[in-house]
Amino acid sequence: MSHAPTDVLGRRHHAIRADIAARGLQALVVTALPNVLYLTNFTGTAGIVVITADTLTFLTDSRYVTMVTDSQSTPCACPGLDLALVDGSYDAALAGALASLPDAGIGFEAAHLTVSRHQWLTAALARAGADRELVATEGVVERARAIKDEYETATLRQAGLRLSEVASTVLAEDVRRGRSEREVASSIDWRIREGGFSRSAFETIVAAGPNSARPHARPGERRLAEGDLVVLDFGGVYDSYCVDLTRTVSIGPAGDRAREVFGVVRDAHDRAIATVAPKRSRFDIDAAARDTLARAGLGHAFGHGTGHGLGIEVHEDPRISRRRPEIDDHVTDEFVAAGMVFTIEPGAYLPGWGGVRIEDDVLVTTDGVELLTNVTTELIET
Amino acid sequence: MSHAPTDVLGRRHHAIRADIAARGLQALVVTALPNVLYLTNFTGTAGIVVITADTLTFLTDSRYVTMVTDSQSTPCACPGLDLALVDGSYDAALAGALASLPDAGIGFEAAHLTVSRHQWLTAALARAGADRELVATEGVVERARAIKDEYETATLRQAGLRLSEVASTVLAEDVRRGRSEREVASSIDWRIREGGFSRSAFETIVAAGPNSARPHARPGERRLAEGDLVVLDFGGVYDSYCVDLTRTVSIGPAGDRAREVFGVVRDAHDRAIATVAPKRSRFDIDAAARDTLARAGLGHAFGHGTGHGLGIEVHEDPRISRRRPEIDDHVTDEFVAAGMVFTIEPGAYLPGWGGVRIEDDVLVTTDGVELLTNVTTELIET
Repeated sequence: MSHAPTDVLGRRHHAIRADIAARGLQALVVTALPNVLYLTNFTGTAGIVVITADTLTFLTDSRYVTMVTDSQSTPCACPGLDLALVDGSYDAALAGALASLPDAGIGFEAAHLTVSRHQWLTAALARAGADRELVATEGVVERARAIKDEYETATLRQAGLRLSEVASTVLAEDVRRGRSEREVASSIDWRIREGGFSRSAFETIVAAGPNSARPHARPGERRLAEGDLVVLDFGGVYDSYCVDLTRTVSIGPAGDRAREVFGVVRDAHDRAIATVAPKRSRFDIDAAARDTLARAGLGHAFGHGTGHGLGIEVHEDPRISRRRPEIDDHVTDEFVAAGMVFTIEPGAYLPGWGGVRIEDDVLVTTDGVELLTNVTTELIET
Repeated sequence: MSHAPTDVLGRRHHAIRADIAARGLQALVVTALPNVLYLTNFTGTAGIVVITADTLTFLTDSRYVTMVTDSQSTPCACPGLDLALVDGSYDAALAGALASLPDAGIGFEAAHLTVSRHQWLTAALARAGADRELVATEGVVERARAIKDEYETATLRQAGLRLSEVASTVLAEDVRRGRSEREVASSIDWRIREGGFSRSAFETIVAAGPNSARPHARPGERRLAEGDLVVLDFGGVYDSYCVDLTRTVSIGPAGDRAREVFGVVRDAHDRAIATVAPKRSRFDIDAAARDTLARAGLGHAFGHGTGHGLGIEVHEDPRISRRRPEIDDHVTDEFVAAGMVFTIEPGAYLPGWGGVRIEDDVLVTTDGVELLTNVTTELIET
């Protein structure tokens, strides 16, 4: 279980209830596990929330009953949680729970419920003679999650501090010529656990030499060699919250081209961070990094977005990226706001040669930006 | 990228093409990443396959282009792969690819496409004046994946061997009184990587004393103490394939109750494995374990299924469990077949006291069963 205090969970419930009432719905079915965690502290792998104006039903199976009931006697109890034991199919249990609600709109998470499950639920409700209307909703809980509450910012600050300590040790101890990418990654994962994280937030990237030109390379048997640029990208999950950090190191003295590319990426990183403040457009934050790279002739070398939100998921809202007309013209949340937490991680990738990425995590404050990670961004030549 | 040889991929494509032709479809859109991997060797985090009778279009973004084109010049090239670069939204690129197909049935994976994406795609095709019919399909690729081919059985044999070696070391070296659950889990994860796995297949479970009564406990700060039963459940991903193993160890001499419960769970494990053979019902394999526990008065203490399929995913078909009328009466594949790989993992969990689970991985052969994992199932008192 996660550890948001009862009053924090209560405020989250209040916000969700206000949103579903404004949509004219009587209930919201929450099937996305990160959203379930946000509303209940539940960290298991199977559970569904049905929240109405005055109830919160939590469906889970026997594996998790002890975990949930134990947590309910702590200061992190989920207020008003009514546990419904699932014995068999979750969707059958959910249909049962929905059939007992009054006949009015029931929202579901259209971005998480599959076509199969939606069809099955609709048919099951019809068979039960309970023709409840299932209404597609988008991002009700995600929108709340995008603005971190005080419990979340405290947790993410602590996580960022711990990840920075891990990174300092990694840079000082682990990046040595002769070691394989896989060995370095394994050591990083060990240090993440030793640093108090429950696990790595994603598959650690250690990409050396030409491999560093692949933004999502997987660590392999290549050994770190003189002249390599090595991209190290890793993160940890601390009390259910994700942080994420990247540094690029030179094995031995960096060549002129490496210094130049590194300098441009670092400048892009700094300029993007300097742009972060409430009411700034996320497209403009992206442009601050992207334009810096383009002015240095590296526009073609930066194919991904400048950043992504962090929280219960390692990729969540807001996306700090170029405007994509086919998606973003329908989206209202172009502007970042105090309480948002996201990465700034520009890079430049030159196939056959190598790449550089520098990544930090930032919190938007009421008057600007706070860095959650804090490790040197100087070029390290090891 | 994964390493299935070109001819193996070709046979997989052939099987899928035969299936979609039999359904009267001209194409199948494959959005589930494990299914994409199965058809292409692609191990990235974003990619879509559109397969027709004579084409295979693979949509991915710039992050993965080098990885895919490199792999295409190896003996593991995906036959007929036509790379379509996504610059922006995957669904917009997919709509474009589908609009260029002739107007006939296009299958999609209903168990993986969300209601949101389905609605968006349908609307985008209509806007483009391409009223293509999207047809819900279920489990086309999953059904093929349930029967492992010779490349997969070789990979899983190798993975099982390696995990058994890791387990032997863990049992001999890591399970020591005074260590915390978290420390032991961290050591196990390290050994999994050192054993040649790319990562742990799931969050390693080390559950000591009363925590062992929670089948999905997360490792915490509890230190292993005299008299504890300790459940150790861990797995690794080897060349994209998952294996999974559990042993339960006693810290110091086991008490009478612990010996008794352990003996019953071990008997349930052995009897279930003895039941595995082609054409046996998966419900009967489950019953072999469940009835053994029930006869010993431990029926109430075993709430989960006896096993789950293993492969590209750590939980896949077939499920070795009780019949669930609301699901299984519509399912035809009650019987296991040669080439299936799954776990056998009965357990008994007594809240407040502790629990026992013993898990091995099996391959159904043409005339019976082969154990893929091989570590003592005797009660270890350490």
